[in-house]
Amino acid sequence: MSTSPKIHATKVIAKTRIFCVEEMELEFSNGTHRTYERLKAGVQGAVMIIPVDKNNNLLLIREYAAGTERYELAFPKGLIEKGETPKEAANRELKEEVGMGAKTLTTLKPMTLAPGYLSHKMYLILARDLYGEKLIGDEPEEIEVVPWPLANKKALLARDDFTEARSIAALYMVSELLDPGRQSGT
Amino acid sequence: MSTSPKIHATKVIAKTRIFCVEEMELEFSNGTHRTYERLKAGVQGAVMIIPVDKNNNLLLIREYAAGTERYELAFPKGLIEKGETPKEAANRELKEEVGMGAKTLTTLKPMTLAPGYLSHKMYLILARDLYGEKLIGDEPEEIEVVPWPLANKKALLARDDFTEARSIAALYMVSELLDPGRQSGT
Repeated sequence: MSTSPKIHATKVIAKTRIFCVEEMELEFSNGTHRTYERLKAGVQGAVMIIPVDKNNNLLLIREYAAGTERYELAFPKGLIEKGETPKEAANRELKEEVGMGAKTLTTLKPMTLAPGYLSHKMYLILARDLYGEKLIGDEPEEIEVVPWPLANKKALLARDDFTEARSIAALYMVSELLDPGRQSGT
Repeated sequence: MSTSPKIHATKVIAKTRIFCVEEMELEFSNGTHRTYERLKAGVQGAVMIIPVDKNNNLLLIREYAAGTERYELAFPKGLIEKGETPKEAANRELKEEVGMGAKTLTTLKPMTLAPGYLSHKMYLILARDLYGEKLIGDEPEEIEVVPWPLANKKALLARDDFTEARSIAALYMVSELLDPGRQSGT
């Protein structure tokens, strides 16, 4: 395995309300010098929550996505706030976006988004033993909650508005965990 | 389902060699106004390639990831260049990063990365009937190719350096397609 390149310098070259672009001067172990750019994310990271109700329905949300300019189906997610653990952040986001709290929260595999140029880390958290509790978030319009039977995984994967890599990965992981007998079924 | 918000204005507020940040003035169907930011990606989109050799090994690459500052295992990927189809781009990237061409290329589900703030589109392309052919890419150091038996999916998922959501989603999809009997096996 290669030795990591030396980072000779980093500097912020653009900063907006949401994004921070950093330039890095790298020297690879073979002597090659390169200038890379990456997006810096918040230190705390983010959570994606997979809420599963007592009837084995996944609770998806349908939300406007500015990047693709259309409504997308996905699992709820959000940034971890200062002082929160990933599980606390997951439960807060669940209450804000779905109107539910969870008595049982389980951390699954951590994921990255595009490690080549994004520093973002994401914790994947399974939420079960749900109960109604609504917190007011900062959403511009009410989020539609879409219950989806876990057993209908294939139909969800076939949808044109379920495309987010993190949600697809999460769906397979939770299906393997909770519904292993049906992995090759419908 | 909600009606998409009206986009009253968009403007580029930061531009670097790699990244372009756009600000959008949105009006949601309930009358709420919001200013969003998103990253604009190239028009052509990107490809992720899942190369599978004749012994049902996946060909992964190990590459330095500037976002997370460590070497990551992932499927090869790259941007589609002007005039290329997604399959042509996939075959070129495969030759550059893995040193193989593919006689059979199959398009799987298109994915998005973070549709809320990235416009990036990614085509997932299965590459089979491989043969040796090396093209020189722009990599700063030789990329290590790591063959991984498809049947050992679980061991790959358990690795700390296999975290990219797109690669995890791709692994499950290709496993379902080529190795359905082992979905709940090792």
